[in-house]
Amino acid sequence: MTYSELSDQIFQKQSYLCVGLDTDPRKLPSHLRTETDPVFTFNKAIIDATADLAVAYKPNIAFYEAQGPAGWESLQKTLDYIPENCFTIADAKRGDIGNTSDLYARTFFDLTAAGLSFDSVTVAPYMGSDSVLPFLAYDGKWVILLALTSNPGSADFQRQQLQRGPLGHQALFEAVIRTAQTWATPDQLMFVVGATQTNELEQIRKLAPDNFLLVPGVGAQGGSLDDVSRLGLTKSGGLLVNASRSILYASSGTDFAERAKDEAKQLQQEMAQHLSSIR
Amino acid sequence: MTYSELSDQIFQKQSYLCVGLDTDPRKLPSHLRTETDPVFTFNKAIIDATADLAVAYKPNIAFYEAQGPAGWESLQKTLDYIPENCFTIADAKRGDIGNTSDLYARTFFDLTAAGLSFDSVTVAPYMGSDSVLPFLAYDGKWVILLALTSNPGSADFQRQQLQRGPLGHQALFEAVIRTAQTWATPDQLMFVVGATQTNELEQIRKLAPDNFLLVPGVGAQGGSLDDVSRLGLTKSGGLLVNASRSILYASSGTDFAERAKDEAKQLQQEMAQHLSSIR
Repeated sequence: MTYSELSDQIFQKQSYLCVGLDTDPRKLPSHLRTETDPVFTFNKAIIDATADLAVAYKPNIAFYEAQGPAGWESLQKTLDYIPENCFTIADAKRGDIGNTSDLYARTFFDLTAAGLSFDSVTVAPYMGSDSVLPFLAYDGKWVILLALTSNPGSADFQRQQLQRGPLGHQALFEAVIRTAQTWATPDQLMFVVGATQTNELEQIRKLAPDNFLLVPGVGAQGGSLDDVSRLGLTKSGGLLVNASRSILYASSGTDFAERAKDEAKQLQQEMAQHLSSIR
Repeated sequence: MTYSELSDQIFQKQSYLCVGLDTDPRKLPSHLRTETDPVFTFNKAIIDATADLAVAYKPNIAFYEAQGPAGWESLQKTLDYIPENCFTIADAKRGDIGNTSDLYARTFFDLTAAGLSFDSVTVAPYMGSDSVLPFLAYDGKWVILLALTSNPGSADFQRQQLQRGPLGHQALFEAVIRTAQTWATPDQLMFVVGATQTNELEQIRKLAPDNFLLVPGVGAQGGSLDDVSRLGLTKSGGLLVNASRSILYASSGTDFAERAKDEAKQLQQEMAQHLSSIR
Protein backbone atom coordinates (compact mmCIF):
# COMPACT_ATOMS: atom_id res chain seq x y z
CA MET A 1 0.00 0.00 0.00
CA THR A 2 1.40 3.42 -0.96
CA TYR A 3 1.56 6.56 1.16
CA SER A 4 -1.34 8.17 -0.70
CA GLU A 5 -3.44 5.01 -0.61
CA LEU A 6 -2.96 4.80 3.15
CA SER A 7 -3.83 8.46 3.53
CA ASP A 8 -6.96 7.96 1.40
CA GLN A 9 -8.05 5.02 3.54
CA ILE A 10 -7.71 7.16 6.65
CA PHE A 11 -10.01 9.87 5.30
CA GLN A 12 -12.47 7.40 3.77
CA LYS A 13 -12.83 5.41 6.97
CA GLN A 14 -12.40 8.47 9.18
CA SER A 15 -10.00 6.41 11.23
CA TYR A 16 -6.32 5.95 11.90
CA LEU A 17 -6.90 2.95 14.10
CA CYS A 18 -4.52 0.03 13.97
CA VAL A 19 -5.77 -3.11 15.69
CA GLY A 20 -2.94 -5.02 17.36
CA LEU A 21 -3.56 -8.72 16.88
CA ASP A 22 -1.57 -9.72 19.97
CA THR A 23 -3.55 -12.87 20.36
CA ASP A 24 -2.60 -14.87 23.42
CA PRO A 25 -4.12 -18.38 23.41
CA ARG A 26 -4.21 -18.28 27.22
CA LYS A 27 -6.57 -15.29 27.12
CA LEU A 28 -9.08 -16.53 24.55
CA PRO A 29 -12.76 -16.86 25.44
CA SER A 30 -13.24 -20.39 26.73
CA HIS A 31 -15.84 -21.33 24.10
CA LEU A 32 -13.15 -21.00 21.39
CA ARG A 33 -10.62 -23.33 22.93
CA THR A 34 -12.02 -26.46 21.29
CA GLU A 35 -11.59 -24.99 17.78
CA THR A 36 -8.92 -26.53 15.51
CA ASP A 37 -7.11 -23.16 15.33
CA PRO A 38 -8.53 -21.02 18.14
CA VAL A 39 -6.12 -18.15 17.44
CA PHE A 40 -7.22 -17.84 13.83
CA THR A 41 -10.91 -18.26 14.72
CA PHE A 42 -10.53 -15.45 17.25
CA ASN A 43 -8.60 -13.19 14.84
CA LYS A 44 -11.16 -13.80 12.09
CA ALA A 45 -13.98 -12.67 14.38
CA ILE A 46 -12.00 -9.61 15.50
CA ILE A 47 -11.20 -8.67 11.89
CA ASP A 48 -14.83 -9.15 10.81
CA ALA A 49 -15.95 -6.93 13.69
CA THR A 50 -13.44 -4.13 13.13
CA ALA A 51 -12.53 -4.04 9.41
CA ASP A 52 -14.77 -1.04 8.73
CA LEU A 53 -13.31 0.86 11.67
CA ALA A 54 -9.58 0.15 11.34
CA VAL A 55 -7.10 1.07 8.60
CA ALA A 56 -4.37 -1.29 9.77
CA TYR A 57 -3.75 -4.59 11.53
CA LYS A 58 -0.59 -5.36 13.46
CA PRO A 59 0.05 -8.91 14.62
CA ASN A 60 2.88 -8.90 17.14
CA ILE A 61 4.97 -11.83 15.94
CA ALA A 62 6.01 -12.92 19.45
CA PHE A 63 2.48 -14.13 20.13
CA TYR A 64 2.59 -16.46 17.11
CA GLU A 65 6.21 -17.51 17.46
CA ALA A 66 5.54 -18.67 21.03
CA GLN A 67 3.15 -21.30 19.58
CA GLY A 68 5.82 -22.93 17.43
CA PRO A 69 5.12 -23.96 13.81
CA ALA A 70 1.34 -23.95 14.44
CA GLY A 71 1.58 -20.29 15.42
CA TRP A 72 3.13 -19.42 12.06
CA GLU A 73 0.24 -21.18 10.36
CA SER A 74 -2.25 -19.12 12.37
CA LEU A 75 -0.32 -16.03 11.32
CA GLN A 76 -0.40 -16.94 7.62
CA LYS A 77 -4.16 -17.56 7.75
CA THR A 78 -4.73 -14.33 9.65
CA LEU A 79 -2.72 -12.26 7.16
CA ASP A 80 -4.59 -13.86 4.24
CA TYR A 81 -7.88 -12.94 5.89
CA ILE A 82 -7.14 -9.23 6.40
CA PRO A 83 -8.99 -7.22 3.71
CA GLU A 84 -6.90 -5.75 0.85
CA ASN A 85 -7.76 -2.18 1.83
CA CYS A 86 -6.11 -2.54 5.25
CA PHE A 87 -2.42 -1.85 5.86
CA THR A 88 -0.59 -4.78 7.47
CA ILE A 89 2.28 -4.56 9.94
CA ALA A 90 4.50 -7.43 11.07
CA ASP A 91 5.45 -6.19 14.52
CA ALA A 92 8.65 -8.19 14.71
CA LYS A 93 11.29 -5.65 15.81
CA ARG A 94 13.91 -7.48 13.76
CA GLY A 95 17.37 -6.28 12.72
CA ASP A 96 20.67 -8.07 12.04
CA ILE A 97 23.74 -7.78 9.81
CA GLY A 98 22.95 -7.22 6.14
CA ASN A 99 22.78 -10.77 4.80
CA THR A 100 20.64 -11.81 7.77
CA SER A 101 18.30 -8.81 7.67
CA ASP A 102 17.80 -9.77 4.05
CA LEU A 103 16.36 -13.09 5.27
CA TYR A 104 14.09 -11.36 7.76
CA ALA A 105 12.89 -9.13 4.93
CA ARG A 106 12.18 -12.22 2.80
CA THR A 107 10.30 -13.78 5.73
CA PHE A 108 7.83 -10.94 6.04
CA PHE A 109 7.71 -9.51 2.49
CA ASP A 110 8.25 -12.39 0.04
CA LEU A 111 5.20 -14.63 -0.21
CA THR A 112 7.29 -17.46 -1.68
CA ALA A 113 9.56 -17.62 1.41
CA ALA A 114 7.40 -18.10 4.51
CA GLY A 115 3.97 -17.60 2.94
CA LEU A 116 3.72 -14.03 4.22
CA SER A 117 3.55 -10.70 2.44
CA PHE A 118 3.06 -7.88 4.92
CA ASP A 119 3.06 -4.22 3.85
CA SER A 120 5.56 -3.36 6.57
CA VAL A 121 7.74 -4.65 9.37
CA THR A 122 8.94 -3.02 12.58
CA VAL A 123 12.75 -2.85 12.79
CA ALA A 124 15.13 -2.11 15.68
CA PRO A 125 17.77 0.53 14.81
CA TYR A 126 20.64 -0.48 17.11
CA MET A 127 22.69 -2.22 14.38
CA GLY A 128 22.49 0.75 11.99
CA SER A 129 22.11 1.27 8.26
CA ASP A 130 23.02 -2.13 6.82
CA SER A 131 20.59 -3.80 9.23
CA VAL A 132 17.73 -1.67 7.88
CA LEU A 133 18.48 -1.24 4.17
CA PRO A 134 17.63 -4.84 3.13
CA PHE A 135 14.02 -4.23 4.16
CA LEU A 136 13.91 -1.05 2.09
CA ALA A 137 15.09 -2.93 -1.01
CA TYR A 138 11.55 -4.28 -1.35
CA ASP A 139 9.73 -1.85 -3.58
CA GLY A 140 6.47 -0.68 -2.06
CA LYS A 141 7.21 -2.22 1.33
CA TRP A 142 7.76 -0.20 4.49
CA VAL A 143 10.15 -0.11 7.43
CA ILE A 144 8.67 1.07 10.72
CA LEU A 145 11.72 1.95 12.78
CA LEU A 146 11.71 2.01 16.58
CA ALA A 147 12.38 5.58 17.72
CA LEU A 148 10.93 6.36 21.17
CA THR A 149 9.01 3.40 22.50
CA SER A 150 6.15 3.35 25.02
CA ASN A 151 7.83 1.30 27.74
CA PRO A 152 9.72 2.51 30.85
CA GLY A 153 12.99 1.08 29.49
CA SER A 154 12.91 3.70 26.71
CA ALA A 155 14.69 5.96 29.21
CA ASP A 156 17.72 3.65 29.46
CA PHE A 157 19.21 4.30 26.02
CA GLN A 158 16.74 6.02 23.67
CA ARG A 159 16.67 9.16 25.82
CA GLN A 160 20.43 9.32 26.40
CA GLN A 161 21.78 12.67 25.25
CA LEU A 162 24.51 12.49 22.64
CA GLN A 163 27.51 14.81 22.60
CA ARG A 164 26.95 18.15 20.96
CA GLY A 165 27.29 17.70 17.19
CA PRO A 166 26.53 19.85 14.15
CA LEU A 167 22.85 19.73 15.13
CA GLY A 168 23.42 20.67 18.77
CA HIS A 169 22.53 18.33 21.60
CA GLN A 170 20.16 15.57 20.72
CA ALA A 171 18.90 12.38 22.29
CA LEU A 172 19.61 9.01 20.70
CA PHE A 173 16.02 8.68 19.44
CA GLU A 174 16.39 12.01 17.63
CA ALA A 175 19.61 10.83 16.00
CA VAL A 176 17.76 7.68 14.90
CA ILE A 177 14.98 9.77 13.34
CA ARG A 178 17.42 12.14 11.59
CA THR A 179 19.77 9.43 10.36
CA ALA A 180 17.06 7.10 9.08
CA GLN A 181 15.65 9.87 6.92
CA THR A 182 18.87 9.70 4.89
CA TRP A 183 18.05 6.05 4.13
CA ALA A 184 14.47 6.34 2.87
CA THR A 185 11.70 8.75 2.00
CA PRO A 186 8.42 8.95 3.92
CA ASP A 187 7.00 6.62 1.23
CA GLN A 188 8.79 3.70 2.87
CA LEU A 189 9.65 4.85 6.38
CA MET A 190 7.55 5.27 9.51
CA PHE A 191 8.66 5.64 13.11
CA VAL A 192 7.38 4.01 16.29
CA VAL A 193 6.62 6.60 18.96
CA GLY A 194 4.87 5.46 22.12
CA ALA A 195 1.60 7.16 23.06
CA THR A 196 3.05 7.59 26.53
CA GLN A 197 5.73 9.93 25.10
CA THR A 198 3.55 12.97 24.39
CA ASN A 199 6.13 15.40 25.80
CA GLU A 200 8.40 14.58 22.85
CA LEU A 201 5.77 14.05 20.18
CA GLU A 202 5.64 17.69 19.07
CA GLN A 203 9.38 17.76 18.59
CA ILE A 204 9.36 14.39 16.77
CA ARG A 205 6.68 15.70 14.42
CA LYS A 206 8.98 18.63 13.61
CA LEU A 207 11.90 16.28 12.93
CA ALA A 208 9.77 14.03 10.72
CA PRO A 209 7.01 16.26 9.34
CA ASP A 210 5.88 13.88 6.60
CA ASN A 211 6.54 10.43 8.04
CA PHE A 212 3.72 8.34 9.36
CA LEU A 213 4.11 7.59 13.07
CA LEU A 214 2.96 4.26 14.46
CA VAL A 215 1.79 5.00 17.98
CA PRO A 216 1.23 2.11 20.36
CA GLY A 217 0.39 2.55 24.01
CA VAL A 218 -3.15 3.94 23.89
CA GLY A 219 -5.44 1.89 26.14
CA ALA A 220 -3.82 -0.69 28.41
CA GLN A 221 -0.51 1.24 28.52
CA GLY A 222 -2.18 4.54 29.45
CA GLY A 223 -1.42 6.90 26.52
CA SER A 224 -3.89 9.63 25.56
CA LEU A 225 -5.52 9.55 22.12
CA ASP A 226 -6.34 13.25 22.41
CA ASP A 227 -2.75 14.29 23.02
CA VAL A 228 -1.37 12.00 20.34
CA SER A 229 -3.87 13.27 17.77
CA ARG A 230 -3.40 16.93 18.60
CA LEU A 231 0.38 16.69 18.31
CA GLY A 232 0.79 14.05 15.62
CA LEU A 233 -1.89 14.43 12.94
CA THR A 234 -0.89 15.91 9.58
CA LYS A 235 -2.82 16.87 6.44
CA SER A 236 -2.17 13.31 5.19
CA GLY A 237 -3.26 11.75 8.44
CA GLY A 238 0.27 10.78 9.35
CA LEU A 239 -0.71 8.59 12.30
CA LEU A 240 -1.52 4.98 12.94
CA VAL A 241 -2.65 4.62 16.54
CA ASN A 242 -2.56 1.06 17.79
CA ALA A 243 -4.82 -0.53 20.38
CA SER A 244 -4.47 -4.19 21.23
CA ARG A 245 -5.55 -5.51 24.59
CA SER A 246 -8.37 -2.97 25.11
CA ILE A 247 -10.04 -4.22 21.91
CA LEU A 248 -9.13 -7.93 21.87
CA TYR A 249 -10.05 -8.63 25.46
CA ALA A 250 -12.96 -6.21 25.94
CA SER A 251 -14.98 -9.27 26.88
CA SER A 252 -13.97 -12.83 27.65
CA GLY A 253 -17.45 -14.14 26.83
CA THR A 254 -19.23 -15.16 23.66
CA ASP A 255 -19.84 -11.45 22.96
CA PHE A 256 -16.08 -10.75 22.61
CA ALA A 257 -16.31 -9.66 18.96
CA GLU A 258 -19.28 -7.39 19.57
CA ARG A 259 -17.51 -5.74 22.51
CA ALA A 260 -14.31 -5.43 20.45
CA LYS A 261 -16.38 -3.62 17.82
CA ASP A 262 -17.75 -1.25 20.46
CA GLU A 263 -14.25 -0.42 21.66
CA ALA A 264 -13.00 0.10 18.11
CA LYS A 265 -16.05 2.19 17.26
CA GLN A 266 -15.43 4.48 20.21
CA LEU A 267 -11.81 5.06 19.17
CA GLN A 268 -12.86 5.57 15.53
CA GLN A 269 -15.44 8.17 16.50
CA GLU A 270 -12.90 10.11 18.51
CA MET A 271 -10.52 9.88 15.55
CA ALA A 272 -13.20 11.19 13.17
CA GLN A 273 -13.51 14.25 15.39
CA HIS A 274 -9.78 14.87 15.30
CA LEU A 275 -9.65 14.38 11.52
CA SER A 276 -12.45 16.89 11.01
CA SER A 277 -10.32 19.49 12.74
CA ILE A 278 -7.40 19.21 10.30
CA ARG A 279 -9.12 19.35 6.91
CA MET B 1 24.53 -24.70 31.19
CA THR B 2 26.21 -22.76 34.01
CA TYR B 3 29.18 -20.40 33.80
CA SER B 4 31.55 -22.96 35.32
CA GLU B 5 30.23 -25.80 33.17
CA LEU B 6 30.82 -23.70 30.07
CA SER B 7 34.28 -22.80 31.26
CA ASP B 8 35.04 -26.48 31.94
CA GLN B 9 33.89 -27.45 28.44
CA ILE B 10 36.25 -24.86 26.96
CA PHE B 11 39.28 -26.29 28.76
CA GLN B 12 38.26 -29.91 28.19
CA LYS B 13 37.75 -29.44 24.47
CA GLN B 14 40.54 -26.86 24.20
CA SER B 15 38.15 -24.78 22.15
CA TYR B 16 35.93 -21.73 22.39
CA LEU B 17 34.49 -22.29 18.95
CA CYS B 18 30.82 -21.61 18.32
CA VAL B 19 29.49 -22.98 15.04
CA GLY B 20 26.89 -20.68 13.53
CA LEU B 21 24.16 -22.83 11.99
CA ASP B 22 23.12 -20.17 9.47
CA THR B 23 21.81 -22.78 7.11
CA ASP B 24 20.55 -21.34 3.86
CA PRO B 25 18.61 -23.90 1.78
CA ARG B 26 19.78 -22.12 -1.38
CA LYS B 27 23.40 -22.87 -0.52
CA LEU B 28 23.11 -26.56 0.36
CA PRO B 29 25.11 -29.17 -1.53
CA SER B 30 22.93 -30.29 -4.43
CA HIS B 31 22.90 -33.95 -3.38
CA LEU B 32 20.96 -33.00 -0.23
CA ARG B 33 18.14 -31.17 -1.95
CA THR B 34 16.00 -34.27 -2.44
CA GLU B 35 15.97 -35.03 1.31
CA THR B 36 12.67 -34.59 3.20
CA ASP B 37 14.27 -31.97 5.45
CA PRO B 38 17.53 -30.92 3.73
CA VAL B 39 18.26 -28.23 6.35
CA PHE B 40 18.14 -30.71 9.21
CA THR B 41 20.08 -33.35 7.26
CA PHE B 42 22.78 -30.76 6.59
CA ASN B 43 22.85 -29.51 10.20
CA LYS B 44 23.04 -33.08 11.50
CA ALA B 45 26.11 -33.78 9.37
CA ILE B 46 27.74 -30.50 10.43
CA ILE B 47 27.06 -31.23 14.10
CA ASP B 48 28.39 -34.81 13.79
CA ALA B 49 31.54 -33.45 12.15
CA THR B 50 32.21 -30.64 14.64
CA ALA B 51 30.78 -31.68 18.02
CA ASP B 52 34.21 -32.60 19.41
CA LEU B 53 35.70 -29.32 18.24
CA ALA B 54 33.00 -26.82 19.18
CA VAL B 55 31.63 -25.81 22.59
CA ALA B 56 28.57 -23.99 21.24
CA TYR B 57 26.09 -23.94 18.37
CA LYS B 58 24.26 -20.83 17.26
CA PRO B 59 21.43 -21.13 14.76
CA ASN B 60 20.55 -17.69 13.44
CA ILE B 61 16.77 -17.74 13.61
CA ALA B 62 16.30 -15.67 10.43
CA PHE B 63 17.46 -18.61 8.33
CA TYR B 64 14.74 -20.86 9.78
CA GLU B 65 12.01 -18.24 9.98
CA ALA B 66 12.42 -17.53 6.25
CA GLN B 67 11.27 -21.11 5.57
CA GLY B 68 7.93 -20.65 7.32
CA PRO B 69 6.52 -23.33 9.67
CA ALA B 70 8.77 -26.02 8.13
CA GLY B 71 11.80 -23.94 9.12
CA TRP B 72 10.73 -23.99 12.75
CA GLU B 73 10.46 -27.76 12.56
CA SER B 74 14.01 -27.98 11.19
CA LEU B 75 15.10 -25.74 14.05
CA GLN B 76 13.43 -27.93 16.68
CA LYS B 77 15.03 -31.07 15.27
CA THR B 78 18.42 -29.36 15.06
CA LEU B 79 18.28 -28.18 18.66
CA ASP B 80 17.25 -31.66 19.84
CA TYR B 81 20.23 -33.11 18.00
CA ILE B 82 22.90 -30.85 19.54
CA PRO B 83 24.78 -32.82 22.24
CA GLU B 84 24.03 -31.98 25.88
CA ASN B 85 27.59 -30.80 26.54
CA CYS B 86 27.31 -28.00 23.95
CA PHE B 87 25.99 -24.54 24.78
CA THR B 88 23.11 -23.46 22.55
CA ILE B 89 22.37 -19.93 21.36
CA ALA B 90 19.19 -18.75 19.65
CA ASP B 91 20.59 -15.87 17.61
CA ALA B 92 17.30 -14.02 17.37
CA LYS B 93 18.15 -10.43 18.37
CA ARG B 94 14.72 -10.03 19.93
CA GLY B 95 13.46 -7.34 22.31
CA ASP B 96 10.05 -5.75 22.91
CA ILE B 97 8.00 -4.27 25.74
CA GLY B 98 7.88 -6.43 28.87
CA ASN B 99 4.81 -8.57 28.25
CA THR B 100 5.96 -9.26 24.70
CA SER B 101 9.59 -10.00 25.57
CA ASP B 102 8.12 -12.48 28.01
CA LEU B 103 6.61 -14.32 25.02
CA TYR B 104 9.91 -14.26 23.14
CA ALA B 105 11.56 -15.69 26.25
CA ARG B 106 8.94 -18.44 26.37
CA THR B 107 9.54 -19.16 22.67
CA PHE B 108 13.23 -19.86 23.10
CA PHE B 109 13.44 -21.09 26.70
CA ASP B 110 10.23 -22.95 27.53
CA LEU B 111 10.05 -26.34 25.86
CA THR B 112 6.27 -26.48 26.30
CA ALA B 113 5.73 -23.30 24.25
CA ALA B 114 7.38 -23.71 20.85
CA GLY B 115 9.23 -26.97 21.47
CA LEU B 116 12.54 -25.18 22.02
CA SER B 117 14.79 -24.87 25.05
CA PHE B 118 17.97 -22.98 24.19
CA ASP B 119 20.57 -22.09 26.81
CA SER B 120 20.62 -18.48 25.64
CA VAL B 121 19.15 -15.93 23.28
CA THR B 122 20.66 -12.81 21.69
CA VAL B 123 18.75 -9.65 22.63
CA ALA B 124 18.80 -6.10 21.21
CA PRO B 125 19.22 -3.42 23.91
CA TYR B 126 17.44 -0.44 22.28
CA MET B 127 14.21 -0.79 24.29
CA GLY B 128 16.02 -0.94 27.65
CA SER B 129 15.62 -2.81 30.91
CA ASP B 130 12.06 -4.09 30.73
CA SER B 131 12.71 -5.52 27.27
CA VAL B 132 15.61 -7.60 28.64
CA LEU B 133 14.52 -8.60 32.16
CA PRO B 134 11.87 -11.15 31.08
CA PHE B 135 14.61 -13.28 29.53
CA LEU B 136 16.63 -13.13 32.75
CA ALA B 137 13.66 -14.39 34.75
CA TYR B 138 14.44 -17.88 33.44
CA ASP B 139 16.75 -19.44 35.97
CA GLY B 140 19.89 -20.85 34.38
CA LYS B 141 19.19 -19.23 30.99
CA TRP B 142 21.34 -16.52 29.48
CA VAL B 143 20.89 -13.19 27.69
CA ILE B 144 23.54 -12.34 25.11
CA LEU B 145 23.12 -8.61 24.64
CA LEU B 146 24.20 -6.78 21.49
CA ALA B 147 26.95 -4.33 22.42
CA LEU B 148 29.30 -3.54 19.51
CA THR B 149 28.37 -5.56 16.45
CA SER B 150 30.59 -6.63 13.56
CA ASN B 151 28.79 -4.80 10.76
CA PRO B 152 29.56 -1.37 9.25
CA GLY B 153 26.25 0.02 10.59
CA SER B 154 27.60 -0.36 14.13
CA ALA B 155 29.09 3.12 13.59
CA ASP B 156 25.66 4.73 13.12
CA PHE B 157 24.44 4.53 16.71
CA GLN B 158 26.52 2.11 18.82
CA ARG B 159 29.61 4.31 18.52
CA GLN B 160 27.84 7.59 19.13
CA GLN B 161 29.42 9.41 22.06
CA LEU B 162 27.08 10.26 24.90
CA GLN B 163 27.24 13.50 26.86
CA ARG B 164 29.71 13.54 29.70
CA GLY B 165 28.12 11.83 32.70
CA PRO B 166 29.39 10.59 36.08
CA LEU B 167 31.61 8.12 34.21
CA GLY B 168 33.04 10.66 31.77
CA HIS B 169 32.50 10.43 28.06
CA GLN B 170 31.37 7.08 26.79
CA ALA B 171 29.97 5.62 23.62
CA LEU B 172 26.48 4.12 23.52
CA PHE B 173 27.86 0.55 23.44
CA GLU B 174 29.80 1.27 26.65
CA ALA B 175 26.65 2.57 28.32
CA VAL B 176 24.89 -0.62 27.24
CA ILE B 177 27.64 -2.76 28.78
CA ARG B 178 27.70 -0.75 32.03
CA THR B 179 23.93 -0.52 32.41
CA ALA B 180 23.22 -4.17 31.63
CA GLN B 181 25.61 -5.25 34.38
CA THR B 182 23.16 -3.74 36.87
CA TRP B 183 20.53 -6.16 35.55
CA ALA B 184 22.37 -9.48 35.76
CA THR B 185 25.57 -11.14 36.90
CA PRO B 186 28.06 -12.75 34.49
CA ASP B 187 26.27 -16.04 35.24
CA GLN B 188 23.41 -14.97 32.98
CA LEU B 189 24.79 -12.18 30.81
CA MET B 190 27.13 -12.19 27.83
CA PHE B 191 27.79 -9.45 25.29
CA VAL B 192 28.07 -9.58 21.51
CA VAL B 193 31.26 -7.90 20.30
CA GLY B 194 32.17 -8.21 16.63
CA ALA B 195 35.58 -9.69 15.77
CA THR B 196 36.06 -6.71 13.45
CA GLN B 197 36.02 -4.39 16.50
CA THR B 198 39.44 -5.29 17.97
CA ASN B 199 40.32 -1.63 18.64
CA GLU B 200 37.65 -1.57 21.32
CA LEU B 201 37.95 -5.12 22.59
CA GLU B 202 40.58 -4.34 25.23
CA GLN B 203 38.45 -1.59 26.67
CA ILE B 204 35.32 -3.78 26.59
CA ARG B 205 37.19 -6.51 28.45
CA LYS B 206 38.01 -3.94 31.15
CA LEU B 207 34.36 -2.88 31.38
CA ALA B 208 33.17 -6.48 31.58
CA PRO B 209 36.08 -8.45 33.04
CA ASP B 210 34.07 -11.57 33.90
CA ASN B 211 31.38 -11.68 31.23
CA PHE B 212 31.62 -14.09 28.36
CA LEU B 213 31.82 -12.31 25.02
CA LEU B 214 30.20 -13.83 21.96
CA VAL B 215 32.38 -12.80 19.05
CA PRO B 216 31.04 -13.24 15.52
CA GLY B 217 32.83 -11.98 12.45
CA VAL B 218 35.86 -14.29 12.25
CA GLY B 219 36.09 -15.81 8.77
CA ALA B 220 33.78 -14.45 6.08
CA GLN B 221 33.52 -11.06 7.81
CA GLY B 222 37.29 -10.66 8.14
CA GLY B 223 37.94 -10.53 11.93
CA SER B 224 41.20 -11.89 13.36
CA LEU B 225 41.11 -14.85 15.76
CA ASP B 226 44.57 -13.92 17.06
CA ASP B 227 43.57 -10.38 18.01
CA VAL B 228 40.29 -11.47 19.55
CA SER B 229 41.97 -14.19 21.61
CA ARG B 230 44.84 -12.00 22.79
CA LEU B 231 42.47 -9.24 23.95
CA GLY B 232 39.43 -11.23 25.05
CA LEU B 233 40.49 -14.46 26.75
CA THR B 234 40.20 -14.71 30.55
CA LYS B 235 41.17 -17.35 33.09
CA SER B 236 37.68 -18.83 32.63
CA GLY B 237 37.90 -18.73 28.87
CA GLY B 238 35.45 -15.88 28.60
CA LEU B 239 35.05 -16.09 24.83
CA LEU B 240 32.82 -17.83 22.35
CA VAL B 241 34.13 -17.14 18.86
CA ASN B 242 31.61 -17.85 16.14
CA ALA B 243 32.28 -19.00 12.62
CA SER B 244 29.42 -19.74 10.25
CA ARG B 245 29.89 -19.51 6.50
CA SER B 246 33.58 -20.48 6.53
CA ILE B 247 32.65 -23.82 8.15
CA LEU B 248 29.21 -24.55 6.68
CA TYR B 249 30.12 -23.83 3.09
CA ALA B 250 33.77 -24.95 3.06
CA SER B 251 32.72 -27.29 0.26
CA SER B 252 29.54 -27.51 -1.80
CA GLY B 253 30.20 -31.15 -2.68
CA THR B 254 29.53 -34.48 -1.00
CA ASP B 255 32.60 -33.84 1.19
CA PHE B 256 31.00 -30.78 2.83
CA ALA B 257 31.00 -32.27 6.34
CA GLU B 258 34.59 -33.46 6.09
CA ARG B 259 35.71 -30.03 4.91
CA ALA B 260 33.64 -28.36 7.64
CA LYS B 261 35.49 -30.54 10.16
CA ASP B 262 38.85 -29.44 8.69
CA GLU B 263 37.90 -25.79 9.04
CA ALA B 264 36.65 -26.29 12.59
CA LYS B 265 39.76 -28.30 13.47
CA GLN B 266 42.02 -25.53 12.26
CA LEU B 267 40.22 -22.95 14.40
CA GLN B 268 40.20 -25.30 17.40
CA GLN B 269 43.94 -25.87 17.12
CA GLU B 270 44.63 -22.15 17.04
CA MET B 271 42.33 -21.78 20.06
CA ALA B 272 44.19 -24.53 21.95
CA GLN B 273 47.41 -22.55 21.46
CA HIS B 274 45.81 -19.41 22.83
CA LEU B 275 44.33 -21.29 25.79
CA SER B 276 47.71 -22.77 26.67
CA SER B 277 49.06 -19.25 27.03
CA ILE B 278 46.57 -18.24 29.73
CA ARG B 279 46.69 -21.17 32.18
